[in-house]
Amino acid sequence: MTREQLIDNINKKRSFLCIGLDPDIRKFPQKLLEEDDPVFTFNKKIIDSTQEFAIAYKLNVAYYENMGAFGMKAMDKTISYLRENYPNVFVIVDAKCAEINNAAEVFARNFFEHLKVDALTVMPYSGRDSLKPVLKYPDKWLLLVTLTPNESAEEFQLMKDEQGEYLFERVIRISKSWDNDSTLMYFVGSYKPNMYKRVRMIAPDAFLFVPSDDKIIENFDSIMSQALNREGCVIMGVSQRLIYSDDSEMFATKAAQVASEIRQMMFNALLKNGVISEE
Amino acid sequence: MTREQLIDNINKKRSFLCIGLDPDIRKFPQKLLEEDDPVFTFNKKIIDSTQEFAIAYKLNVAYYENMGAFGMKAMDKTISYLRENYPNVFVIVDAKCAEINNAAEVFARNFFEHLKVDALTVMPYSGRDSLKPVLKYPDKWLLLVTLTPNESAEEFQLMKDEQGEYLFERVIRISKSWDNDSTLMYFVGSYKPNMYKRVRMIAPDAFLFVPSDDKIIENFDSIMSQALNREGCVIMGVSQRLIYSDDSEMFATKAAQVASEIRQMMFNALLKNGVISEE
Repeated sequence: MTREQLIDNINKKRSFLCIGLDPDIRKFPQKLLEEDDPVFTFNKKIIDSTQEFAIAYKLNVAYYENMGAFGMKAMDKTISYLRENYPNVFVIVDAKCAEINNAAEVFARNFFEHLKVDALTVMPYSGRDSLKPVLKYPDKWLLLVTLTPNESAEEFQLMKDEQGEYLFERVIRISKSWDNDSTLMYFVGSYKPNMYKRVRMIAPDAFLFVPSDDKIIENFDSIMSQALNREGCVIMGVSQRLIYSDDSEMFATKAAQVASEIRQMMFNALLKNGVISEE
Repeated sequence: MTREQLIDNINKKRSFLCIGLDPDIRKFPQKLLEEDDPVFTFNKKIIDSTQEFAIAYKLNVAYYENMGAFGMKAMDKTISYLRENYPNVFVIVDAKCAEINNAAEVFARNFFEHLKVDALTVMPYSGRDSLKPVLKYPDKWLLLVTLTPNESAEEFQLMKDEQGEYLFERVIRISKSWDNDSTLMYFVGSYKPNMYKRVRMIAPDAFLFVPSDDKIIENFDSIMSQALNREGCVIMGVSQRLIYSDDSEMFATKAAQVASEIRQMMFNALLKNGVISEE
């Protein structure tokens, strides 16, 4: 998917919601476990009920791997289902790949060529040449993990180099020489609006992927006033708080309700920051 | 496996060889593809023929994921085979996990509890709390990726902070407050002996995992004179150059021959650096 299509989808859906499909069968409604493939069924129901509010879905490989071959099959099925039924939806696979050379190549082949996902999360710390094999795909994206919202982020991501630049800033700045804003996006998680301001100084046009832990949600408005640029290049990931908002058979309906509420918040932020205008 | 057992195995086998099981069916002997499960069969033959020369095996998840559910099954089977038949062998799963919170937990459950591997590669850049769920297992190891041998390592791993310390040194230094040398080991890849010297200043007793690209093999003796400590705490990973040294049906025999030659190099290094003595 191109940058223009992604921006267009945000405008049309008035949302920048990405739903994280992180299946944990211990949190599934009891009844669902009687199904042949409860994981795929869960995902399918969540997708069907929420897709009008979301522009993207993200699958975290760790959750699927945890279920072995069975889980990997459910992941492949879910991706195919998205591709076939909702071709305008952006699909991210979150494997936080940090491979180099041959391994990075097989990784890219699997996800970009075989499963046809739009974006892969990658760890940038081995530098440009480690990502060469994943950088060569047109209209495919790399989501570089630069700042995570946990406290220990200060141990490395928030260390300063000899010039006083944070490591996460350096990652963004240097990565701009690897490729452009149509292939690189950045995972930036912090509850401090100022961090997003710093990012926007270096990467005014890039897409930022913002996670949604409690403290980020609490500071949603002030964060978005810094993170959103004119074109609205933000994707916000929401997972557990949405997909497990209800553990009865009504889970998909409840998930849609939560998605709709979050979309409303996002709509307000897009409006307030001049990305879209009231019709 | 405990630190003492690992050191004991190096002494007994007079080797610190770790064989990387990175299956790529395009490189398999033609005949093998007629088998029901060529990947597992390939791994099993390599393991059986090389285990007397190796103290460890490493499975890179990217290669197995690339083959979908089928690949993941072969990975699980390979790990079980190692656990059942060669319980003294150290098993590393290379997934370069960079998960935080829930995802890190499911990751640890899968590999440590379910598959019973000894060590997991992890990316340390999100800091201590990101690794909490994987740090709580006694006798299980984390292999922290700190310095990779590719040229672009200089972009981040070899950046210096305000105190003039390299990022990879900082990672090792700070991680020592997370846990100890019986649970943390470090991936250090460089063809410069001086880098290993710097590592040994910070972590004299830790296990170092050294990859084996061409330039590292060329400088093997000078690298090992810095990397090996008194107890011989080094593991060297060898993959493609060993497992694909022959593409005929004799591949396992040839792999054993290469393993034996590498073990001889390692034996010499252990002897020369006073880890073992001639009997």
